[in-house]
Amino acid sequence: MSNFKILHKDGKARVGLLETPHGVIETPNFNPVGTQATVKAMSPKDLNEIGVQMVLANTYHLMLRPGVKVIKSFGGLHKFMGWDRPIMTDSGGFQVFSLGGGMEEGSSKVVSSKNGKVKESPRPKLNKITEEGVTFQSHLDGSTHILTPEKSMELQLHLGADLTVAFDDHEYRDDAKHLLESIERTEGWAKRSLAAFKKLDSKQLMYGVVHGGTNKKLRIRSAKFTDQNFEAIALGGIYGTKKQMYQMIDYTLPQVSENKIRHLLGIGEIEDLIEGIKRGVDMFDCVAPTRRARFGSLYVSNNQTLSIGQSKYKADKKPIDPQCSCYTCQNFSRAYLRHLYLSGEILYHELATYHNIYFVTNLVKKIRKAIISNNLPNLKL
Amino acid sequence: MSNFKILHKDGKARVGLLETPHGVIETPNFNPVGTQATVKAMSPKDLNEIGVQMVLANTYHLMLRPGVKVIKSFGGLHKFMGWDRPIMTDSGGFQVFSLGGGMEEGSSKVVSSKNGKVKESPRPKLNKITEEGVTFQSHLDGSTHILTPEKSMELQLHLGADLTVAFDDHEYRDDAKHLLESIERTEGWAKRSLAAFKKLDSKQLMYGVVHGGTNKKLRIRSAKFTDQNFEAIALGGIYGTKKQMYQMIDYTLPQVSENKIRHLLGIGEIEDLIEGIKRGVDMFDCVAPTRRARFGSLYVSNNQTLSIGQSKYKADKKPIDPQCSCYTCQNFSRAYLRHLYLSGEILYHELATYHNIYFVTNLVKKIRKAIISNNLPNLKL
Repeated sequence: MSNFKILHKDGKARVGLLETPHGVIETPNFNPVGTQATVKAMSPKDLNEIGVQMVLANTYHLMLRPGVKVIKSFGGLHKFMGWDRPIMTDSGGFQVFSLGGGMEEGSSKVVSSKNGKVKESPRPKLNKITEEGVTFQSHLDGSTHILTPEKSMELQLHLGADLTVAFDDHEYRDDAKHLLESIERTEGWAKRSLAAFKKLDSKQLMYGVVHGGTNKKLRIRSAKFTDQNFEAIALGGIYGTKKQMYQMIDYTLPQVSENKIRHLLGIGEIEDLIEGIKRGVDMFDCVAPTRRARFGSLYVSNNQTLSIGQSKYKADKKPIDPQCSCYTCQNFSRAYLRHLYLSGEILYHELATYHNIYFVTNLVKKIRKAIISNNLPNLKL
Repeated sequence: MSNFKILHKDGKARVGLLETPHGVIETPNFNPVGTQATVKAMSPKDLNEIGVQMVLANTYHLMLRPGVKVIKSFGGLHKFMGWDRPIMTDSGGFQVFSLGGGMEEGSSKVVSSKNGKVKESPRPKLNKITEEGVTFQSHLDGSTHILTPEKSMELQLHLGADLTVAFDDHEYRDDAKHLLESIERTEGWAKRSLAAFKKLDSKQLMYGVVHGGTNKKLRIRSAKFTDQNFEAIALGGIYGTKKQMYQMIDYTLPQVSENKIRHLLGIGEIEDLIEGIKRGVDMFDCVAPTRRARFGSLYVSNNQTLSIGQSKYKADKKPIDPQCSCYTCQNFSRAYLRHLYLSGEILYHELATYHNIYFVTNLVKKIRKAIISNNLPNLKL
């Protein structure tokens, strides 16, 4: 049973509270990604300071290293990584399908496309997909593994996350026949995921995942199925362009119960957060803030970014964003950050990541306040 | 005029206070190295938490990137790097001589030697050493630069450190004739360093550097010269084996005034700190804690280290050092650190470096207390 309560609405946008075994999460909420049981360059102390409410860890990466057995021996991820607030794990499905296809771990599933067409999602040659599950080779040592709905649920139980995700199919191809096959497989795996959880006596909250690519009819079918079977609704799969993604959200959410929490998987650029929340999404996770930071792209006000490596910042005494209250902006200049960035210093990653996560976390807090005061359309970014 | 006061002695070991424009330093003291205006992987907040009293930054690296002009425009290093406690800069001399020779920046000057002989210190082919100074090529872009005593003093003035070092000769060769030539050059450059500071009206405290390799006679000559001309005494150059280094300290320190602060440049392994302090050294700097951390070598009690990558730590729930009170040891296991280390995670570097610097800082504090209670010989490591 989901412990989600909606406190207020402004149009379709919602403000709520989600109770979990590790505390209450205020929604809307953005979760930084801690793929390998660490949000890259951030300590739990940093994340607490910033006000991060939950992190998402990747089952695929953790099953291969250090191995779920090790994490289980600690009593789960919370103890292992020293983080006592909520954790969400994914099913591992996305990674085993996108492995070897050049997609970065946990990356956004929006395939950018200049001509508006959706590109086929790449997948590894070595995977074998059957009704049973997915056979794949470890990106670390080439060893062979299988992920099934039952296996994914067992791993997620031992990882001990507060929120989990049903095992789903990501074998996306842009035609109705294949999409339908994929939806049917996802539905079968969803039921097996639920049955496995019941058998394991897991009390974790599980998201079912709405698929259907950019096909309105299949999105609606998948949304209805997910709502009938799950207490928490995740939106996944390939969306095509941003415009198509927003359309798919518009088609999907009217099909699911108002009182269920909704998570837009793997999405989290600034404009996506705003557009998603306006449409009724409650939760997000994305590597954007952390990955952008590592590559020198830092968030500033007015929905902009700056590239800290640019020579114009060489002697710039201003903080990254003069309106930001984070530790980095309160103490360090663009010139210093540029120097650290160009020098390949580890401290650059700490300070830049801190800022980007703070910026997004703070933005979502502002959005939450704007919803409460029925002022979302006038929110200044 | 040095503002150094000795508060207590136990044998030759001393406890003192050094007043600087950015606060009082309790001695003995160990300075972590912040080569590029950052102690690798540590924020100023981390260093403050640990109780670090001073950091050492490298003039050579900073003159090339971001350039001293940029740092000067901030009013100096303190503002640029967000560190308001004391800073020491070196002269740049060591780096321009050791460039290209495979020595890591700021590395220990002890050349390890299995047969007990001192190896020739490597130096770059492209350097031109004259009485004027040293011409060298940037390791970043090959551009040609010159460092002279006057130039080094000007750079150190603009960097604005509390403690500085006179420009010295590092063209070491293991024979008396060359050593004598080198000592004479160092003496000439020392006088020019002093004259340059006077002309620039610098109020910074400047260390003169005692050289002489492993030659007792030359060490004594250099010590006397340095004591006659400087308010602060640094011990530099090549020492050979550890045993020879301790001998050279024994020969040198009786030649210098009791009331002057003494810094053993570039040295800071645990046993060196203890042996140095016992012999009357007050200050140390070394990349050992930070570099060891990056390569998986972590300090534990009883003057030991552990290699965190070893498989025996795979599921080890103990902290790095069960006796350590640092943030890392209070919150994380060896198993988690090993996982982060093997996964190449940035957080590994933060947590490991934090521990190693804390460990050394705390050890020197314990040594200080032991001196005050006349109990240094019984100190338990």
